Amino acid sequence: MFLEELRSAVPADRVITDADMLARYLHDEAEWAGYAPPLAVLRPRTAEEVRDAVRVCLRHRVPIVPRGAGTGLSGGANSIRDCLIIAFDQMNAIKEIDPLEKLAVVEPGVVNDDLRRVAAESGLWYPPDPASSPWSTIGGNVATNAGGICCVKYGVTKDYVLGLQAVTGTGELVRLGRRTAKGVAGYDLAGLMVGSEGTLGVITEVTVRLRPSRAAERTVVGYFDSIVSAGQAVEAVASAGVTPSALELVDRQSLLVVDAWKNMGLSVDANVLLLGRIDEPGELGDRAALDLRECFDKAGATWSATSTDQAEADALFEARRLVYPAMERLGPVLTEDICVPIGAVAEMLARIEGIAAQRDTTIANIAHAGDGNLHPLLIAPNDDAAAKARAQSAFDDIIDAAIALGGTVTGEHGVGLLKMSGLTKELDPVVLDMHYSVKRALDPHNLLNPGKVIANRLG
Amino acid sequence: MFLEELRSAVPADRVITDADMLARYLHDEAEWAGYAPPLAVLRPRTAEEVRDAVRVCLRHRVPIVPRGAGTGLSGGANSIRDCLIIAFDQMNAIKEIDPLEKLAVVEPGVVNDDLRRVAAESGLWYPPDPASSPWSTIGGNVATNAGGICCVKYGVTKDYVLGLQAVTGTGELVRLGRRTAKGVAGYDLAGLMVGSEGTLGVITEVTVRLRPSRAAERTVVGYFDSIVSAGQAVEAVASAGVTPSALELVDRQSLLVVDAWKNMGLSVDANVLLLGRIDEPGELGDRAALDLRECFDKAGATWSATSTDQAEADALFEARRLVYPAMERLGPVLTEDICVPIGAVAEMLARIEGIAAQRDTTIANIAHAGDGNLHPLLIAPNDDAAAKARAQSAFDDIIDAAIALGGTVTGEHGVGLLKMSGLTKELDPVVLDMHYSVKRALDPHNLLNPGKVIANRLG
Repeated sequence: MFLEELRSAVPADRVITDADMLARYLHDEAEWAGYAPPLAVLRPRTAEEVRDAVRVCLRHRVPIVPRGAGTGLSGGANSIRDCLIIAFDQMNAIKEIDPLEKLAVVEPGVVNDDLRRVAAESGLWYPPDPASSPWSTIGGNVATNAGGICCVKYGVTKDYVLGLQAVTGTGELVRLGRRTAKGVAGYDLAGLMVGSEGTLGVITEVTVRLRPSRAAERTVVGYFDSIVSAGQAVEAVASAGVTPSALELVDRQSLLVVDAWKNMGLSVDANVLLLGRIDEPGELGDRAALDLRECFDKAGATWSATSTDQAEADALFEARRLVYPAMERLGPVLTEDICVPIGAVAEMLARIEGIAAQRDTTIANIAHAGDGNLHPLLIAPNDDAAAKARAQSAFDDIIDAAIALGGTVTGEHGVGLLKMSGLTKELDPVVLDMHYSVKRALDPHNLLNPGKVIANRLG
Repeated sequence: MFLEELRSAVPADRVITDADMLARYLHDEAEWAGYAPPLAVLRPRTAEEVRDAVRVCLRHRVPIVPRGAGTGLSGGANSIRDCLIIAFDQMNAIKEIDPLEKLAVVEPGVVNDDLRRVAAESGLWYPPDPASSPWSTIGGNVATNAGGICCVKYGVTKDYVLGLQAVTGTGELVRLGRRTAKGVAGYDLAGLMVGSEGTLGVITEVTVRLRPSRAAERTVVGYFDSIVSAGQAVEAVASAGVTPSALELVDRQSLLVVDAWKNMGLSVDANVLLLGRIDEPGELGDRAALDLRECFDKAGATWSATSTDQAEADALFEARRLVYPAMERLGPVLTEDICVPIGAVAEMLARIEGIAAQRDTTIANIAHAGDGNLHPLLIAPNDDAAAKARAQSAFDDIIDAAIALGGTVTGEHGVGLLKMSGLTKELDPVVLDMHYSVKRALDPHNLLNPGKVIANRLG
């Protein structure tokens, strides 16, 4: 009856129930998180279709899992048993780029890089740049409050969301937020939706703030012998008042796995690599690049350089990008996403090294070091249950260490399923109760991505 | 019994009931908004005292009105009959300035300018700069999501709040948000508190992000014959990709009242004044100042200049600051705070002129023009009930016009009491219902600044 009613509520071709097709929508890229088969996948073309489908779900008490490109790393888009997955790949129109108001209005299925490309044609720039930007969608980015490399200077997705259109937990289509530069009319419900991972509403349109296009970046590279000296360099940058547009760290294990795959010879020269970028133009940029390099050198860089060669700079950032696929060759990757104070980056990296040894688990670290946002990548060979258990223990140890150092269990990937137990460790029980209060207020039937972020509670 | 219990729950000297003293806490600077006498004023010294007092209020169902410096312009801090006012003037410690993490931890009663001054000693800067910064407090700024002059480049209070400590509607002391640069662990409840005007929690501590101190600003001035050409200049700046650190507009009526008071001769030379600021250093700043001036000239400025003289530049910004007190000399001022798209600034100013004529009301406009945030100042002579009624009608007309132009009823002052009817005009009834749902979820007994922002609902 549910499927019949759904097919009559929206054009029937929007509804997929073919098992082979459904298999493509079962989970995101958090390989370690659980999932179960849905009743169907909806591929809507309009916000009204989403609303009408949600109303059918409300009548039949069918849970709803919204899904962007499925590039999430915490299981937030994983299918729940007998749910309706709403996949936004057919709602990918860039509805408006307004160069005067510096904003864009997009459907949730627009790919991040597509928005960037179209904005650039008007001399504008959409900063949030998760590593998934060639595939991930603005809707997914908003749902997880995605970060990226340039956040260290330009902030995260939340800082760019002006307004939303969403279907509520009671099946109403509403507009939240605004199009003006400022506004304090009522509670910031648009902001509340950002990062709520589909548990408070189903996003059907997003209005984002844009910035003027910026100058070409220059790259400053530093090689370090130890995590400690690299960590000191990160602190020095933060203290010096230099504001790089990227400050990435790649550790020894990462360099080794990339070398083992691509033979780039990185691990011969460096134990730890810091990659900084500066995007101020002209003299100011020259000066900032010098300052950044000086921070590296004073902290004990064994080698440093400001790249004037774009190809060379791109190759180094490419090496960073290759760490994840290089690790995946060795087995399923469990991706961490802790964020600690800048002053704790070196200590956190040292603790991770200790945990890797103690739990006999291979852990490579890439990090948005300038933000204190670390991505330890843990692997366990396929079909090795013991190794998998050790990796899971290491994952939990890392979460505990991050909280002990004043950090958070997730900097930019979201809670999804993988960080739910971490969240309960991080939050005061009263604050967790406030989450339930807000969830009940906006999703009274607990049908919006239930059991994600916070566990289903009985009663 | 309430007072007895309160005096035993907190040190007795924190509780004020003397009528003369209470009179000082009756209202904020929204002279047109209503108020009624409180039972008492609490001047707590610790977060725990606030919590304990809230618990007594919960037991006796006494409503709570948190109050900063009382410089608000919407009546948000106005006393409610038989409430407890919690005044934070004794909680004004700057607990921490962390130059490495670039953050400050402050009690809510810290004055905005005091935070700025202390941050500057560490080479850091707290950007939000409401006109009330010499008096208004960080707690009040957070409660209203205060803006200011530099928002056009640096954003509003919300963009700087990392975390909060607050007492909830159930009398629990909680920490929301974080100290790390990034974090997506759970719902953004800290962000939800910002701008909620004390209706969702009582803020007892704030952790704010700081930026490195910036270079000295230069000032670019433009005189214009008409609102239309000044509006075109504002649009030109927005389109040109220049990012001024201030872009303020002062209209003819404002220049006239300041001249009438201070005899500055401003209205002889200009009908409309645009004041821009550029804070990039060196060459880049030279270039940006030139670009800004070119925008003014192309839009038809009758005169423009880049000020190299700080005293001269300060005098012009001082003229802007004098508009409000100059208007106050003529009668009680009703302050508007609409925000419209940049492309609608000229049209909005023209409509305000029309409304002033039609309603026979004196209206002077100062505006954060680069944000589209206009502050029409309406006056009515004392003891002229008819004039007051006309001003109130003009106020409502301006709200209607702002909404019609795609704007909002409040850009930075908050809803308080004065904008409640405007809010119901602006918001979809379903979105208003969501406000009530969230309010009930976090303040189940409706004791936190009840009847502000959204009206009390029966049942």
